[in-house]
Amino acid sequence: WILVEEDGIEKLQRHFSFKNFVDALAFTNQVGELAEKEGHHPAILTEYGKVTVTWWTHKIGGLHRNDFISAAKTDAL
Amino acid sequence: WILVEEDGIEKLQRHFSFKNFVDALAFTNQVGELAEKEGHHPAILTEYGKVTVTWWTHKIGGLHRNDFISAAKTDAL
Repeated sequence: WILVEEDGIEKLQRHFSFKNFVDALAFTNQVGELAEKEGHHPAILTEYGKVTVTWWTHKIGGLHRNDFISAAKTDAL
Repeated sequence: WILVEEDGIEKLQRHFSFKNFVDALAFTNQVGELAEKEGHHPAILTEYGKVTVTWWTHKIGGLHRNDFISAAKTDAL
């Protein structure tokens, strides 16, 4: 995970690689299921062979402890 | 659809709004199904209540007729 800043908001971001689009989209759905379970939703960019997951907390306009927990749970999918 | 330029590459982009994350993700999957059928894959950014679809043709580093067709088919989903 790397720390990125978009519009002055700090976020946690990681790229995940896959062999095609279908596998990438399947991972997107896994992250989506996690997000619904946690009640905390990332931005998920799905491309051919690649998914980019970005976690931050809208309410505080930056990073909260929960974002680091969600990042770790994303890794465990 | 608006024309955006990212890293010198022209792309077609549109935001679609939804009432929550689950509905947004469902649309992402519909776009993914279209992409697989067409053999042409966009970037799909899934967020809470919003999906951003971006079409361009990697091979030519810009826009091809097929991107406009894919955009129209995305609208028809």
